Amino acid sequence: MITLTSDFGLKDPYMAEMKGVILTINPKATLVDITHEIEKFNIRSAAYTLASAAPYFPEGTVHLAVVDPGVGTQRRAIAIKAKNGFFVGPDNGVLILAAKNQGIEHINQLANPNFMLLNVSGTFHGRDIFAPAAAYLDKGVRIAEFGPEIIDPVTPKYAQVEFNGGSFSGEVLNVDDFGNIITNIAEKDVTFKEGDTIQVELADTPLKIQLGKAYAQAKPKEPILLVGSHGFLEIALNQDRAAKKLHVKAGDRVAFTEI
Amino acid sequence: MITLTSDFGLKDPYMAEMKGVILTINPKATLVDITHEIEKFNIRSAAYTLASAAPYFPEGTVHLAVVDPGVGTQRRAIAIKAKNGFFVGPDNGVLILAAKNQGIEHINQLANPNFMLLNVSGTFHGRDIFAPAAAYLDKGVRIAEFGPEIIDPVTPKYAQVEFNGGSFSGEVLNVDDFGNIITNIAEKDVTFKEGDTIQVELADTPLKIQLGKAYAQAKPKEPILLVGSHGFLEIALNQDRAAKKLHVKAGDRVAFTEI
Amino acid sequence: MITLTSDFGLKDPYMAEMKGVILTINPKATLVDITHEIEKFNIRSAAYTLASAAPYFPEGTVHLAVVDPGVGTQRRAIAIKAKNGFFVGPDNGVLILAAKNQGIEHINQLANPNFMLLNVSGTFHGRDIFAPAAAYLDKGVRIAEFGPEIIDPVTPKYAQVEFNGGSFSGEVLNVDDFGNIITNIAEKDVTFKEGDTIQVELADTPLKIQLGKAYAQAKPKEPILLVGSHGFLEIALNQDRAAKKLHVKAGDRVAFTEI
Repeated sequence: MITLTSDFGLKDPYMAEMKGVILTINPKATLVDITHEIEKFNIRSAAYTLASAAPYFPEGTVHLAVVDPGVGTQRRAIAIKAKNGFFVGPDNGVLILAAKNQGIEHINQLANPNFMLLNVSGTFHGRDIFAPAAAYLDKGVRIAEFGPEIIDPVTPKYAQVEFNGGSFSGEVLNVDDFGNIITNIAEKDVTFKEGDTIQVELADTPLKIQLGKAYAQAKPKEPILLVGSHGFLEIALNQDRAAKKLHVKAGDRVAFTEI
Repeated sequence: MITLTSDFGLKDPYMAEMKGVILTINPKATLVDITHEIEKFNIRSAAYTLASAAPYFPEGTVHLAVVDPGVGTQRRAIAIKAKNGFFVGPDNGVLILAAKNQGIEHINQLANPNFMLLNVSGTFHGRDIFAPAAAYLDKGVRIAEFGPEIIDPVTPKYAQVEFNGGSFSGEVLNVDDFGNIITNIAEKDVTFKEGDTIQVELADTPLKIQLGKAYAQAKPKEPILLVGSHGFLEIALNQDRAAKKLHVKAGDRVAFTEI
Repeated sequence: MITLTSDFGLKDPYMAEMKGVILTINPKATLVDITHEIEKFNIRSAAYTLASAAPYFPEGTVHLAVVDPGVGTQRRAIAIKAKNGFFVGPDNGVLILAAKNQGIEHINQLANPNFMLLNVSGTFHGRDIFAPAAAYLDKGVRIAEFGPEIIDPVTPKYAQVEFNGGSFSGEVLNVDDFGNIITNIAEKDVTFKEGDTIQVELADTPLKIQLGKAYAQAKPKEPILLVGSHGFLEIALNQDRAAKKLHVKAGDRVAFTEI
């Protein structure tokens, strides 16, 4: 099984070309799209999305992610063998978060032309290098055959959750398609629990809300704080777009204080 | 075979997580997306879409639909055994129209934790309850094993077609991506036929148009009335967006009179 | 294997109905979406997209494309046997570019009702005629069984590349989702090469740029000329939308002069 994540959008033939390449090499591959609607060149957003989805796939799944502003430059192409599967893509941080969550075993450079298309373009390594690598990994080719092992992958830095003067502070990790505001502060990071009332500092709008467990516990269009489906604290409006109404975007600071 | 319908959009990892869960339980499942672009929380639109698509799938197909504003509350999770397949989703009406068209045989609550993920979140039953249920149904688990039978599913009310003073009246069921205006008035409900001239009352724009059979029978950007591909009367502009030009949306009243 | 290209968008049930029809006839078919976000009724754009993607699919792949403003009129429905696979769709030019690139062997009309749905609507031949044809071709039914051979398919005319007074001139073939401007002038059409400085005449903005090989060779938001992943000259801004900034759209004239 191979999953596919990119910032290609859905109108161009590019992702289909990658799928054609994979299915030519490995006709039995099962392909599952994670998303191709990552904001263009937003490596952090792709890393978060891949890290969210990867844990739900079977042992041995190959995760292919192409958000690749440096395509054709000296940035390396890599494959990672992690505890429960493989990751393939550019060495720009897009794979590291998901792979670390599993436990990284080896990282190898994709340097062996036997596992690339014959003509490698300077603009589309997704098709010419990454798709063949994913197809061959899924077929059982060992990672060491792709190229030399590396130990210094590009690793993005993520904001850490801090505890100061009674407040847990962090940042907005993602705004989802429902407009829900997902923070990097996990349930396990904090001391408060369901039913507690929390002071939320978020952009220009301070809120006092209860920690609940379902969106519909709030009245329609009213705010609620809850533990989202990946274990992170999340601010939502019941059946409305919290991020839009509260003027919040990914990267904004957020703090929670029990009151 | 399992079909998937939701209001999740295409940028988040949520639907991929559901697919990963299904393929972990049932690696041989064939997954087909119906759409994930249902308007957020629009149960009626999802019900219409699912009812349109379901008849074209093979015997035994499991149809999974998640438009679920009440997730985490007391609303029930259900599976339906219908004549030609299964339906899985929240008990809020999203499944009933499609299931009734086939003939409902049994409706059971999804209450057996053996067929759920170990940790059920309060915000994402699509992944934690519905996806496993669909995977196990597709694998052959009998519907009675999921939980107690129920006989009072939430059933949405749909506008009925009426005949008064020579006019057939009903409502706009859907506006499709081409801007075509699909009504709830079926070919079999009316007495007029191809070639007849019809007075159409629709929002603020009365139209006098012939009942034709192909969009291109009208001149470019001119209106035509025809029987759409699901048997409902449909107002279109040839190669233009009728709903936008005529200021019409789903739920608007419509009436047809033969003249 | 069957690929699917259309202008249906992603919110309606139409493409899923086609997939259901295919999988009912041929449950073992592997389906791959190329795109369903072709601009409505834009046959040229669909032809370009299909011609880009088709070469990457395995021998014997059936390519189904439905951009069909003339559905229900006298326009013919056709299947093409080409050197490496099959093409199915309306006889309006959408298939010809991709099929010619492989080498066309036979073109047959889809006229045999044994390979259609029982009730053929006037508005949705994608589901009622083309999907069954693709499913049966993929199952091994010979093309001659679908209907009489034809030799006069509708063939779109494409702008030719011209060389005049030291300039290569052509047109913008496509603007992709990244905003990259893809021309119809191929690397093999021109005499200049990587590292040369080129005068680009494009809409209202003359540019003097080097022919490079990777987007990131330009500074962020600066222009670069390169050979795109299908062999055509392409004007891009590094991590920005060239077409938007330079006010360019498909069909615009473009000329390159070595300086």
